[in-house]
Amino acid sequence: MGRLGIDLSADVGEGFGAWSMGDDALLFPFLTSVNVACGFHAGDPGVMDRTVAAAARAGLAVGAHPGYADLRGFGRFPMALPPEVVEADVLYQVAALAGFARAHGAALSHAKPHGALYNQAAADATLARAVARGVARFSRELVLVGLAGSAPMAEAAREEGLRFAGEGFPDRRYEGDGTLRARARADALVLEPEAVAAQAVAMARDGRVAAADGRPLAVRAETLCLHGDHPKALANARAVRAALAEAGVEVRPLGA
Amino acid sequence: MGRLGIDLSADVGEGFGAWSMGDDALLFPFLTSVNVACGFHAGDPGVMDRTVAAAARAGLAVGAHPGYADLRGFGRFPMALPPEVVEADVLYQVAALAGFARAHGAALSHAKPHGALYNQAAADATLARAVARGVARFSRELVLVGLAGSAPMAEAAREEGLRFAGEGFPDRRYEGDGTLRARARADALVLEPEAVAAQAVAMARDGRVAAADGRPLAVRAETLCLHGDHPKALANARAVRAALAEAGVEVRPLGA
Amino acid sequence: MGRLGIDLSADVGEGFGAWSMGDDALLFPFLTSVNVACGFHAGDPGVMDRTVAAAARAGLAVGAHPGYADLRGFGRFPMALPPEVVEADVLYQVAALAGFARAHGAALSHAKPHGALYNQAAADATLARAVARGVARFSRELVLVGLAGSAPMAEAAREEGLRFAGEGFPDRRYEGDGTLRARARADALVLEPEAVAAQAVAMARDGRVAAADGRPLAVRAETLCLHGDHPKALANARAVRAALAEAGVEVRPLGA
Amino acid sequence: MGRLGIDLSADVGEGFGAWSMGDDALLFPFLTSVNVACGFHAGDPGVMDRTVAAAARAGLAVGAHPGYADLRGFGRFPMALPPEVVEADVLYQVAALAGFARAHGAALSHAKPHGALYNQAAADATLARAVARGVARFSRELVLVGLAGSAPMAEAAREEGLRFAGEGFPDRRYEGDGTLRARARADALVLEPEAVAAQAVAMARDGRVAAADGRPLAVRAETLCLHGDHPKALANARAVRAALAEAGVEVRPLGA
Repeated sequence: MGRLGIDLSADVGEGFGAWSMGDDALLFPFLTSVNVACGFHAGDPGVMDRTVAAAARAGLAVGAHPGYADLRGFGRFPMALPPEVVEADVLYQVAALAGFARAHGAALSHAKPHGALYNQAAADATLARAVARGVARFSRELVLVGLAGSAPMAEAAREEGLRFAGEGFPDRRYEGDGTLRARARADALVLEPEAVAAQAVAMARDGRVAAADGRPLAVRAETLCLHGDHPKALANARAVRAALAEAGVEVRPLGA
Repeated sequence: MGRLGIDLSADVGEGFGAWSMGDDALLFPFLTSVNVACGFHAGDPGVMDRTVAAAARAGLAVGAHPGYADLRGFGRFPMALPPEVVEADVLYQVAALAGFARAHGAALSHAKPHGALYNQAAADATLARAVARGVARFSRELVLVGLAGSAPMAEAAREEGLRFAGEGFPDRRYEGDGTLRARARADALVLEPEAVAAQAVAMARDGRVAAADGRPLAVRAETLCLHGDHPKALANARAVRAALAEAGVEVRPLGA
Repeated sequence: MGRLGIDLSADVGEGFGAWSMGDDALLFPFLTSVNVACGFHAGDPGVMDRTVAAAARAGLAVGAHPGYADLRGFGRFPMALPPEVVEADVLYQVAALAGFARAHGAALSHAKPHGALYNQAAADATLARAVARGVARFSRELVLVGLAGSAPMAEAAREEGLRFAGEGFPDRRYEGDGTLRARARADALVLEPEAVAAQAVAMARDGRVAAADGRPLAVRAETLCLHGDHPKALANARAVRAALAEAGVEVRPLGA
Repeated sequence: MGRLGIDLSADVGEGFGAWSMGDDALLFPFLTSVNVACGFHAGDPGVMDRTVAAAARAGLAVGAHPGYADLRGFGRFPMALPPEVVEADVLYQVAALAGFARAHGAALSHAKPHGALYNQAAADATLARAVARGVARFSRELVLVGLAGSAPMAEAAREEGLRFAGEGFPDRRYEGDGTLRARARADALVLEPEAVAAQAVAMARDGRVAAADGRPLAVRAETLCLHGDHPKALANARAVRAALAEAGVEVRPLGA
């Protein structure tokens, strides 16, 4: 490829029934891919259907975003499930989402665990392997997305024959060890669009970011995720796209 | 084909978590296909995984058995959902089940709605169409299974480009109008294996059955369903297989 | 009492986990009572806890708002459940909500079914009786709230020894038969605060309202319900309070 | 009291919808109290209604048995929920169960967390406190039941003004540290009724039991729990009652 490039994505389809969360359509023009909730932590089948339809119309790469079976906790409460349960849950959700992709003439391109499953799997080899197995049993053509720098996720992908793509978060604060600052903390989010854009460029072009303690942290990401429920979601997306263009970083989907 | 033939199936994988229902393995040797619950009325992903694995090992045709999202009611409580909700729910469930089939090297062969969705769709053209659309949007290669004689289901299949297969119930009592006697009624079940077997032969060979009022009722079925939670499930299956053989009716899966 | 009076309420606590719905606190200063979701169609235990705490602090009468066990449908999809299931579901939800009221030093004052359960029970004597039984088995001190003019609900309350209070909706359009215009219809809502206020006064003072067909309809309500998810919820509440005061109608909770 | 005494209980009402678990009625004649599932890990409102009715008829002390909101995992998967979520969930479940007790003219006597919540709270002071707060906010008259020897549970009860009762398990194997051998282990259960009975007497009379490593372990229990899903549940109950009588230990409910 030669040219510097990065995928720009968001977690979408996170409403449920009468409840909505964020405004997916707002971010679509700025993205190259989306991670669609699969019904376990958010996203009922109707939401999935409409979300995948919109993403396919917008030409975005569609990924599955499986989570713990926990609507009340939005998949954010850590759990200790047997690996075979996680594997089956992931396979189920990926397959269900793929069904909607198929119905809308779009290929499923990737899968990325959500919330507590994402965070726990980033640090736990057994759990990462269960996630990777669930994805790989559906298809080895899918890219497995996980926290940039997570050895367990990268290794699990390799063992299951999947391509791994590290993910960075321009609008979240990082701890010195490469994990995300907990959402409960006041400064978990990067609040200003300029700072979000700067963090995006730092990741995409330089492969590093300033951690919460101020020190440089290596974050080698192939995809950047913007949060639609961020108070300045739209301004962030606009600023990131402009800053990446300025920095000469091409924005393109994972598979490209 | 020339020779008389019929599919013999059961609804399986209807446990959930720590709860089991019936003993699927007991019936497997007598069947040619199974209808696997998809997580909405029964069957969590682990149950689905194990059930599809066992069915594939046994060489049975694997079908999806989507139901209303109602674990507490086991999908047996009638509901009035908007058609687009039913369509998305069916597509979701069929796709999820197909994922397990794919993981076990088995092709999904058919889909059959469950419980109240089955009964309501048999009599309601809009609902039948929603079910058929959910199935067809996943794949037009699937056979849509529904109550034998249901014009709404047969018509919905035709309109959505699906092959329809009428289903008969050797162990359930029929009303004079071709519907099943309600489960709440004392004589909803045909209780004795000999009677079950006789009803199976009457359907498979003669295309008719004696209704609860004693009068003959046309039941043109391509598939017969045995209930694993029937008190004499195993004896029924054995008796039906023997009686069909005796009557010169070949037992073969739907697609054969 | 002599003086004209009416209760002014809203359905509240209708978020779930990470999802919110409306802004309850906005309406509280204008109300005399609230109907709190009980976890089946909306409102997890944490939401219930916080909602009851806020209502008790605001001095509002606290009522239980039980619905069908259907988070995805927000309790708005009609169902056909056995009466004993409805009865047990209502008792469960009322008791759970009463637990939070007790914990916050507030007495539970009333119970009002939600959504499809509300609408179906307004027209179905068996269902109304099941709702009333569920409430009465918890406590005969509770007021049963239902659609003003519903004979089934009024009769069920009487048979179970409960006081019945008819409810009117200033911000919803009425059909000529006294039912609410379906939410799917474009003109289901009364949109302008002035019109909402006028409808409130017409109900509270005159006991009648103009139906969608323009003809007068008797609506004898002891309580008026404002919707927090109405686009002009706050302006409606303000306008209704002002108009009732102007019309000499005292606003007071049901039990007063 | 003078005389040696112990409560004999079982976890009951653990079916859900069409699914059953164990046969509660079988054990009732041998028990003095029951712990009734409250709908989160098992036990829908109908099951709760019928279970409490039967327990009240049998003269048993009725307790609430709240668990994690996880039907699929039967409340046995460890979770890391915020304490305020656990507290609200426990209060909700205890209040709901108390509603059925009230409807059947029975007082709620105690509350005991279930499964993973039970095991985690036995070792985690913050979680134990959340459980105790949920119970105490409903009523300080309730006895809090937890693993015999658990300092966190005993302390949490004390801080919330609840009486604590330690629980022993005659049919489960103990680790040397007083925890239960994990269910996944082959020898998690004590299998023979004679051995179960001997363990019951050792706990009730001598306050100790032989751990899996053979060494004596102090287990000071005020209540013994028998499992209805044990393969020899009925024989166990019979043997325990006979052995306790023989040993001069009176069987009586917690509150007596």
